[in-house]
Amino acid sequence: MRESELLAKIAERSASLTRAFPHVAVGPGDDCAVVRIGNTDCLLTVDQVIEGSHFRKATPLDLIARKAIARSISDIAAMAGTPVCALATGALPKGFEQSKADELFDCMKRWAEHWACPLVGGDIASLPQTSDPMTLTVTVIGSTHPARGPVLRSGAQAGDGIYVTGKLGGSFDAASGLGKHLTFEPRLAEARWLADTLGARLHSMMDISDGLGRDASRMADASKVRFEIQPELIPRNTPDWRRAASDGEDHELLFAASGEVAHAIASSGLPITRIGSVMAGSGCFIIDGATAIDVRDLGWEHT
Amino acid sequence: MRESELLAKIAERSASLTRAFPHVAVGPGDDCAVVRIGNTDCLLTVDQVIEGSHFRKATPLDLIARKAIARSISDIAAMAGTPVCALATGALPKGFEQSKADELFDCMKRWAEHWACPLVGGDIASLPQTSDPMTLTVTVIGSTHPARGPVLRSGAQAGDGIYVTGKLGGSFDAASGLGKHLTFEPRLAEARWLADTLGARLHSMMDISDGLGRDASRMADASKVRFEIQPELIPRNTPDWRRAASDGEDHELLFAASGEVAHAIASSGLPITRIGSVMAGSGCFIIDGATAIDVRDLGWEHT
Repeated sequence: MRESELLAKIAERSASLTRAFPHVAVGPGDDCAVVRIGNTDCLLTVDQVIEGSHFRKATPLDLIARKAIARSISDIAAMAGTPVCALATGALPKGFEQSKADELFDCMKRWAEHWACPLVGGDIASLPQTSDPMTLTVTVIGSTHPARGPVLRSGAQAGDGIYVTGKLGGSFDAASGLGKHLTFEPRLAEARWLADTLGARLHSMMDISDGLGRDASRMADASKVRFEIQPELIPRNTPDWRRAASDGEDHELLFAASGEVAHAIASSGLPITRIGSVMAGSGCFIIDGATAIDVRDLGWEHT
Repeated sequence: MRESELLAKIAERSASLTRAFPHVAVGPGDDCAVVRIGNTDCLLTVDQVIEGSHFRKATPLDLIARKAIARSISDIAAMAGTPVCALATGALPKGFEQSKADELFDCMKRWAEHWACPLVGGDIASLPQTSDPMTLTVTVIGSTHPARGPVLRSGAQAGDGIYVTGKLGGSFDAASGLGKHLTFEPRLAEARWLADTLGARLHSMMDISDGLGRDASRMADASKVRFEIQPELIPRNTPDWRRAASDGEDHELLFAASGEVAHAIASSGLPITRIGSVMAGSGCFIIDGATAIDVRDLGWEHT
């Protein structure tokens, strides 16, 4: 199944879920779910990091803990929310020392509190073999922006500008396994500023975890619009725009806002760059000179 | 470190957490955390099931999914709460078929909805090796009982009766790997009836996951009282009361309530049995004839 079909299936299932359970405002498919509990809208997200995929056996425990927490915090930022609390699990290889398990959870606790998101619960369990890969999961609960509410992927409108925070690409250093993928700063402050300042003009937002090409394509599809991105405008940590647009684990924000916000953004001093425009239509295109390259033709789609 | 010391450490850390973050009413150490979000108290719990520990490779996917969901739902019942929604992760061995992954998540979705707890988010990731053990985590968010509020482990008082739901022991069939540990019914209805009917007289409650001996000991310690349990009163699925009190994964409720509730419970028709009494003092004792056996001497404590 193509990823676009998979996402369409998830969107349909999510829609049927919100019909059956009216307290579920947003189900699977966005950065966070939005669920009304009592009379409060909560943001909910969970993510996992696995040894061998998201970090290496040699990666320092503090950086593993940081990444596990930061990925879920970044999902809260992507909705313009504020973290409230977190829960964590660790499935640790047989024989993993108790002192190291304590250190790992102390690190997760410290990073969670660093983002004002106390770790309120969790579970540690042992995997059957000493060679089994450590797996951590982190659930974060957040509150929605009091004025703007949750900012979804599906709100981009023709005429909007397309923006990103920070610089893209090169998060993972293949030689060392280190890099920004372990040390990125979730864009909570930028997201809050955007929701505070732009309010309803902030139409759509998500965090870039699978590369700008894939994620911008998802936002365009969810919003039923066409994205046109100028490659020379992409702020990047790598000379090649193709890498900047395809490397994963940036954890920068991608957002669409109505066009008249350029001045506010420019005068904010925040690291925010306009990279393109939203049009009527469909798909996500990179405008290379006179050629509109469909991002799907760049081979970034999961199949 | 003895488990009682570990629990004391967790309790102290939990207390310091609630001082630093006033919206955290109950931190780690109870069946659920209790966190105020906006003006709503939420129950939060996460648990994990691991192939080789909590189920076998041959266990049907539907029973694995059921157990993963039911364990966390049982934690919500233990606080007398109502499930609101769930998030799930699956770390699946390399090469796990997509159709089986879909089936697994469909089963988790169906069981979550069976307990009125829609699955609103999650993540699936692949483990590096085909031989790596499948690990599922389930986070459940719940609402507290509107009148009684959350029922903690720490509220048992001298003079209370000690009660359990259902029958204990024998949840795990060693030959087949099957049994009640895969098919138990979380005691949501009984917990709700208790909170509705007994109100403030329902002093303390938890779910029995590690065996009556260990868990009753934890409740006695958390409540700073002495538990005396009559072994012949323990309702059981196995002839030997020692096994009934030590086998794990019962997922029945253990609760303490002020003594005058016996009539209401007896006339309810619910499977609830009084097994002992709360006294001033400390520790958890099984009264075998004229002998008070400290449960710690029965070798059930994790060390």
